[in-house]
Amino acid sequence: MKRYTLKAALSATPVAEDFVAIDVPYPDCPPGGIVVRTIYLSLDPYIGSRLRGRHMGETPPAPMADAIPGAIVGQVVESRAPGIAEGDYVHAMEGGWQEYAALPPGHFRKLDPAAAPLRAHIGVLGMPGLTAWAGITQLAKVTAGDVVLVDAAAGAVGGTAGQIARIKGAAKVVGIAGGPEKCRLVTDTYGFDACIDYKAEGWQAALKEALPEGASVFFENVSAEMAMTALSVSRTYVRGVLCGLADAYQSAGPAPHALNAGAVIGKRAQMLGLVVYDFYPRWDEYVTEASGWIRDGKLAFAEDHADGLDSTPALFGKLMRGANVGKPIITVSEEQA
Amino acid sequence: MKRYTLKAALSATPVAEDFVAIDVPYPDCPPGGIVVRTIYLSLDPYIGSRLRGRHMGETPPAPMADAIPGAIVGQVVESRAPGIAEGDYVHAMEGGWQEYAALPPGHFRKLDPAAAPLRAHIGVLGMPGLTAWAGITQLAKVTAGDVVLVDAAAGAVGGTAGQIARIKGAAKVVGIAGGPEKCRLVTDTYGFDACIDYKAEGWQAALKEALPEGASVFFENVSAEMAMTALSVSRTYVRGVLCGLADAYQSAGPAPHALNAGAVIGKRAQMLGLVVYDFYPRWDEYVTEASGWIRDGKLAFAEDHADGLDSTPALFGKLMRGANVGKPIITVSEEQA
Repeated sequence: MKRYTLKAALSATPVAEDFVAIDVPYPDCPPGGIVVRTIYLSLDPYIGSRLRGRHMGETPPAPMADAIPGAIVGQVVESRAPGIAEGDYVHAMEGGWQEYAALPPGHFRKLDPAAAPLRAHIGVLGMPGLTAWAGITQLAKVTAGDVVLVDAAAGAVGGTAGQIARIKGAAKVVGIAGGPEKCRLVTDTYGFDACIDYKAEGWQAALKEALPEGASVFFENVSAEMAMTALSVSRTYVRGVLCGLADAYQSAGPAPHALNAGAVIGKRAQMLGLVVYDFYPRWDEYVTEASGWIRDGKLAFAEDHADGLDSTPALFGKLMRGANVGKPIITVSEEQA
Repeated sequence: MKRYTLKAALSATPVAEDFVAIDVPYPDCPPGGIVVRTIYLSLDPYIGSRLRGRHMGETPPAPMADAIPGAIVGQVVESRAPGIAEGDYVHAMEGGWQEYAALPPGHFRKLDPAAAPLRAHIGVLGMPGLTAWAGITQLAKVTAGDVVLVDAAAGAVGGTAGQIARIKGAAKVVGIAGGPEKCRLVTDTYGFDACIDYKAEGWQAALKEALPEGASVFFENVSAEMAMTALSVSRTYVRGVLCGLADAYQSAGPAPHALNAGAVIGKRAQMLGLVVYDFYPRWDEYVTEASGWIRDGKLAFAEDHADGLDSTPALFGKLMRGANVGKPIITVSEEQA
């Protein structure tokens, strides 16, 4: 079967040419585990960091051997797991860029294909959605009347965060994104009240104008510098969710991660560090709640989609350049084999 | 009457020679306000910052005119305030380095001289104590079992914070202070379990050893750099109170205020900015609670005391050098006139 791996250890921002397909044996089914046929493959910003061993202390995949990590939705083709039958659908964080994945027990969640479209489990019901939900509902605890600022708002985390904030009663949701196309997605599809294009001249003044009352919550995905911009347009007692530092995931050198302590004190801010791993035990709870929002038309998602495992390196390179509009998702095989 | 003022506008860390006594007219009593005879005068680190206009946007006192700001306990000698009689005792944040102070309505709190020693309202029942209480009980919400790390632990804020943490059920309280004498105060008088001398070689290893289980709360008074040290010996989900940046108050140049966002995220930390002004409406509540702790022998305080208004510049210079052990307090006049 086909697998994509690294040609060599990475030191710079990944590009499409860093990846190569190799032929590997069809995997054995682990004791208590399953083998799945990959249907949908998720491409996420943190992978850019993880490939260089810069993510949460995790070892990067070995060049010319290991699959590039990536979350998947797959269909079970072989099961030694109790309660899982051939033909069942599962989500797994460690499926990877390959046609089939062997998953040990505890490394997959069974999906209900009737509750939501299978592809929604990449993105809005997947790790990005769980991240957004955790930050908005568990850390910032957004309630009626909150004024919420979200950056990387066109992304799967940011777009979902803003929508969940709205569902939880936020009075106003403002996004920051790069370029008019992403901003249109944020306002027209995700329904934010406004979106500020940080690539446009005078964007910081526009941001200030969009938030005359000051944000009561901000959700930070990009960088410490951007968090300080968000803090500057926030009101006293703002809750700031520190979710990710995508700029650092994508850049080659060490990024400045500096939050200004004086500004945090002056604003009486709460800066709340978020790691989504902590919320994996609550994933099914989130999926149940959010599937209802999708059915009710309250939670939209957008995809930057490509067909076939061979289109993965190019789409990942696009993500690393920040050129994707919508969640990058690869259809590796058909839902029905 | 005598008043101490600045000789000239300051640009560097204040020293005793920056201050000069001038003779000014005895003040008029403001409408609805009072005139008090200063009994005790508080010297606090933030004044070093405020004199240079670097504190919360407040205007520095005008040289050769305004009194140096400072909290006082005083006795009312003239009253146009309802409910306040001649002979009553009050606390005021803006009494200043002078023999008598005119205080407009809303700028003083009446004290009960039977509830606690009058001098306790400088320090442990004053703004430093209120700050400690707010951080420990209202922001970090310390409860049974917490492991609490406090720096500048020999100071009025830090020493009180650790003791209140213990009263609220902390399983362990560790301090950081500069030099063996301060550390003895922290362990012997304030009853911390341990105190690490940051001026001693290998102190960071000693700190780590003192907290094998990791801090669940830290209370930061010194600098962003010290906050990052505290974070490094903390457990996941630590609540960090950002109370003050005393290093910056005392230094001449701009101080690095950088909190590392990646470290905050990795530890899932809550960084909580504290400004004590927000808790002024709850001051009487704190005094009532803490007076009981003082009577019960649960809350100790130490003073670095000097007699007479003329001893103020020298004691303030000592505070700015970090050489004081205990809360700096000046007896300006006798409790009973």
